[in-house]
Amino acid sequence: MDNRPIGIFDSGLGGLTAVKETVRRLPGENIIFFGDTGRVPYGTRSAPTIIRYALEDMRFLKRFDIKAAVVACGTVSTTALPQLRENFSLPIYGVTEAAVAAAVRETRSGRIGVIGTNASIRSGTYERLLRQRLPDAAVISRPCPLLVPLVEDGRFDPEDPVVRLLLCEYLTPILEFGADTLILGCTHYPLLRAAVSAVCGNGVTLIDPGRETAEVLARELAADGLAADPGRRGSVSCYVSDDAQSFSRFGGMFLGADITATVSLCDIFDETAAKHEG
Amino acid sequence: MDNRPIGIFDSGLGGLTAVKETVRRLPGENIIFFGDTGRVPYGTRSAPTIIRYALEDMRFLKRFDIKAAVVACGTVSTTALPQLRENFSLPIYGVTEAAVAAAVRETRSGRIGVIGTNASIRSGTYERLLRQRLPDAAVISRPCPLLVPLVEDGRFDPEDPVVRLLLCEYLTPILEFGADTLILGCTHYPLLRAAVSAVCGNGVTLIDPGRETAEVLARELAADGLAADPGRRGSVSCYVSDDAQSFSRFGGMFLGADITATVSLCDIFDETAAKHEG
Repeated sequence: MDNRPIGIFDSGLGGLTAVKETVRRLPGENIIFFGDTGRVPYGTRSAPTIIRYALEDMRFLKRFDIKAAVVACGTVSTTALPQLRENFSLPIYGVTEAAVAAAVRETRSGRIGVIGTNASIRSGTYERLLRQRLPDAAVISRPCPLLVPLVEDGRFDPEDPVVRLLLCEYLTPILEFGADTLILGCTHYPLLRAAVSAVCGNGVTLIDPGRETAEVLARELAADGLAADPGRRGSVSCYVSDDAQSFSRFGGMFLGADITATVSLCDIFDETAAKHEG
Repeated sequence: MDNRPIGIFDSGLGGLTAVKETVRRLPGENIIFFGDTGRVPYGTRSAPTIIRYALEDMRFLKRFDIKAAVVACGTVSTTALPQLRENFSLPIYGVTEAAVAAAVRETRSGRIGVIGTNASIRSGTYERLLRQRLPDAAVISRPCPLLVPLVEDGRFDPEDPVVRLLLCEYLTPILEFGADTLILGCTHYPLLRAAVSAVCGNGVTLIDPGRETAEVLARELAADGLAADPGRRGSVSCYVSDDAQSFSRFGGMFLGADITATVSLCDIFDETAAKHEG
């Protein structure tokens, strides 16, 4: 048994969709979430900058004596995971691997679609992992650069004409390709699930990387003897690099109304900050 | 006469539209441009973060022994100008003041519209400055949070259905209000000029803050004896905090094809960088 917290980070607030799934699956765990809202989005930046930011984010989380880390950001998971694992000696879970395993499990036709940020799709990580597990997979991947700004602007209603128009543009090639499974390859996208479903119809199974990663995390923590005491009640503490106030306004929509969390503004470069939580 | 460079900065590449106007108006000046592409956008962040970033950006530009600075960013101009002027003792030009002067000069009905980022509109700076100069002005201002991501994604074609739909949404209340003058209150927006015109029709005069600021700058440098030698040929050096490569791809579209500029990736926190240009 290990009651130390799990660290979870994202470029912004999208990763809270993964926190929500983790709390549902592992209600006894303490979770420290960091959202780099002062530098979001990552998905339009270059790989070297994404790697630098990811290392800084993880260095911040390490102050809390975490037992494991979840990279709840599709962009960092596809672009900086080897560098994170090289530099930090704790179990680090990206969201891509579990999503790929689920897509391979769910597909019947072997035709799989992936949507993600520019950086995620450019990295080719989803395609590479899919072909490793299912060599005959036919994969189509599409960058959707405007979906993160859309969600961060609070727009994900399936009836919103801008949401609808953009999703039709991004998803039509995937539907024409005949994919029966679609990886929502960015932790912002589960908020668009209803809108994506409305465009794709019932014939396409949607994969939520945060939900799949929570399953893997639960299994592996138990196997490694790192799970918290059973029956224990966990907590969620959130840190953001900009504007705790706007977190209060938007965080709930990512996290779900039934989860309460404390929120603090932090300076990740100030080594003295947050020590008391360690 | 003073041949030292003029410093110009923006959160990203939008400020290059102001660089373009400055080069046209003042071809003899050396220009150092900094685009904070590693942290763009600023317009969705809180005021304290925008002020902190702006002070860091200016500190970087100061290394080049600049004689004056232009804040070619609507968000910083509306939100951090007093703090910049307090901390740095050189002439600093925001883009809001010149835009407001032009709008007051151009309007016939006194009904003026303003579009800008969330932070710019929230600051109330455009409205305050407009009412100072024209107490009877009727002003309508609208935040347009998705226009910067749209432009940064290279989308500003008036025929693009997403561009059209979003501009109709943002501009319809301004047209219904009966504005005869519209301030494009963010340096990204001049790239949308044709698309905005297509929605607004000929009855609305569009004000480009970068262009107006270049006029004021030319006048004031001359008045203060700070202009470069006449007949001299100036240069443009650009620095970005992420991905000089993507600058090469997109910079031209902001700067105009007829202007050549050198581009370097820089770390604004590394005090030893760029000293050689001082």
